[in-house]
Amino acid sequence: MNKILCGVDIGGTKCSIALIDDNGKILDKIHTGAHVDKNEKGLVKMVAENIKEIFKRNDLQESDLPGIGMGCAGHIRFRDGVIITSSNLKGFKNYPLREAVQSYFKIPVILDNDANAQAFGEYKFGAGQGFDDMIFLTISTGIGAGIIINKKLYRGITGTAGEFGHMIVEPDSELTCTCGNRGCLMACACGMALPWLFEKKLKEGKKSKLNLPPDFIRSEINGQLLKKGLEMDDPVSKEIILDCGYYVGLGLYNIFQALNPPLIVLGGGLTNWGEFYLNKIKSTFYNLARDMIFDPIEITVSKISGDAGVIGAAALTLEEQG
Amino acid sequence: MNKILCGVDIGGTKCSIALIDDNGKILDKIHTGAHVDKNEKGLVKMVAENIKEIFKRNDLQESDLPGIGMGCAGHIRFRDGVIITSSNLKGFKNYPLREAVQSYFKIPVILDNDANAQAFGEYKFGAGQGFDDMIFLTISTGIGAGIIINKKLYRGITGTAGEFGHMIVEPDSELTCTCGNRGCLMACACGMALPWLFEKKLKEGKKSKLNLPPDFIRSEINGQLLKKGLEMDDPVSKEIILDCGYYVGLGLYNIFQALNPPLIVLGGGLTNWGEFYLNKIKSTFYNLARDMIFDPIEITVSKISGDAGVIGAAALTLEEQG
Repeated sequence: MNKILCGVDIGGTKCSIALIDDNGKILDKIHTGAHVDKNEKGLVKMVAENIKEIFKRNDLQESDLPGIGMGCAGHIRFRDGVIITSSNLKGFKNYPLREAVQSYFKIPVILDNDANAQAFGEYKFGAGQGFDDMIFLTISTGIGAGIIINKKLYRGITGTAGEFGHMIVEPDSELTCTCGNRGCLMACACGMALPWLFEKKLKEGKKSKLNLPPDFIRSEINGQLLKKGLEMDDPVSKEIILDCGYYVGLGLYNIFQALNPPLIVLGGGLTNWGEFYLNKIKSTFYNLARDMIFDPIEITVSKISGDAGVIGAAALTLEEQG
Repeated sequence: MNKILCGVDIGGTKCSIALIDDNGKILDKIHTGAHVDKNEKGLVKMVAENIKEIFKRNDLQESDLPGIGMGCAGHIRFRDGVIITSSNLKGFKNYPLREAVQSYFKIPVILDNDANAQAFGEYKFGAGQGFDDMIFLTISTGIGAGIIINKKLYRGITGTAGEFGHMIVEPDSELTCTCGNRGCLMACACGMALPWLFEKKLKEGKKSKLNLPPDFIRSEINGQLLKKGLEMDDPVSKEIILDCGYYVGLGLYNIFQALNPPLIVLGGGLTNWGEFYLNKIKSTFYNLARDMIFDPIEITVSKISGDAGVIGAAALTLEEQG
């Protein structure tokens, strides 16, 4: 029998529990949004019950699986399985989530940051197959990342390594990140920057073909809307996408100098902007790196579908520990 | 008998061959500047002869040592032992230096970048003792670095990982690095930036107590001179030291977010600016990192004396391979 893996992805709006096969294909999945109103214990109980339910309806015993992998946004102390802080979940400050879920099961439960989980999923089942080392960067509302070194996630002392989104690339930027600093990569080049960038272009006198009504809610300016703008050949949308691409390209250059990886995989919603965006990322990168590239470096997009979170979480159970 | 190690440090002006004990203490050393006028083969022959000489005068057989470690500035493809480019040495473009020296010896010869060697020396014999992971940053004319992960150097695909000096931290900076890019950490905050920074302050109308004569050669404005300025309470020297400290602090913050290390060790000539400089580095770092530090991170200075290059090179022979 092929290996079956179980993953749990705890996001801000939805919580997914899935079984996948050892090619990264989803076999069964439970989706719920009920977790958002629960306290810590309530969420843990719901997750555990859903895991037991998905095992039951697939005629699986716990012992048929190598473990249960969980991914969750936020700062996580990996070695203890503790959520230090999570912007996605109410409460959960210094909460030992791994231990709490573990108390329901005999097989090992693993908890990691969602970007780390996605990175490992990409390494096992996606664009990272065949590589021993890679960087994964996910660009959506925020920017997360995971570092694979020698077939394993490199997590650093706490487990927060790979926070390239917080690298400062423009110290005097007008853009402030949720962390409070100015000019983080995340502040300049992801979903959270889009409303501000859009407004700035309009203030500079640029005209958008999107013709948003005056009462349009600024926070609703997002990646999808700019994609629509790109398709309409809207100059404002295109400029913003190029600005974001520039900063991501610069960020990749900094990552290249820091870690000299053979592969960087880009995931997350903003990669849906497609070639126009990716070409700017790559041209910025290559303009900066030029003759300092001595071995091939591949920059590509994620090969894992929309279920990257839960597939990545399940993949964590394949990581060699120690 | 304790282990005796052999290291070779090939610098721009001097070449050192030394024996050290397994506490990192120098037992014997040969210094020469003769290598600068030699071509590739001539340098290799000279290095090999000096190694044989230092073995002979210490009654050592080759087989008494685990290997010969060599450090050299420049881009080095580690797995092949090839110098891709080196600003310190004439010629040596894509030169297989390791193989050339190896042809004189039976014990393994290891060649790495000088900053990697120093990082490993610091890990084995200096401030890194007792840590499994650390970052070493050397700040002098340029900025070099080495990454220790799980007791080994992390080198990346070519061997050029750890080039934090080329991280871009100020894309619109007026300062250009030797690499050609603007606003690298190296362009903003090391020896090569000092003449430009000094001139800029004077142009802004600031008065320096150093009272340099009008015919003073700009390129002679270096770390030592500014240290003299600092001791004289010269406001211009102090401002420049604080500016440099700010960018290094910002660079350390970016490294912290990228790699979440438990230890960062600073070496190189500019650390001689002392507490005034180090306090600015640390205050900048902690102002940026604030509540994102969840486990202790130590920022400290190198514990290895002026011979860090050759001690580091020798230490490379203690690194587990594979």
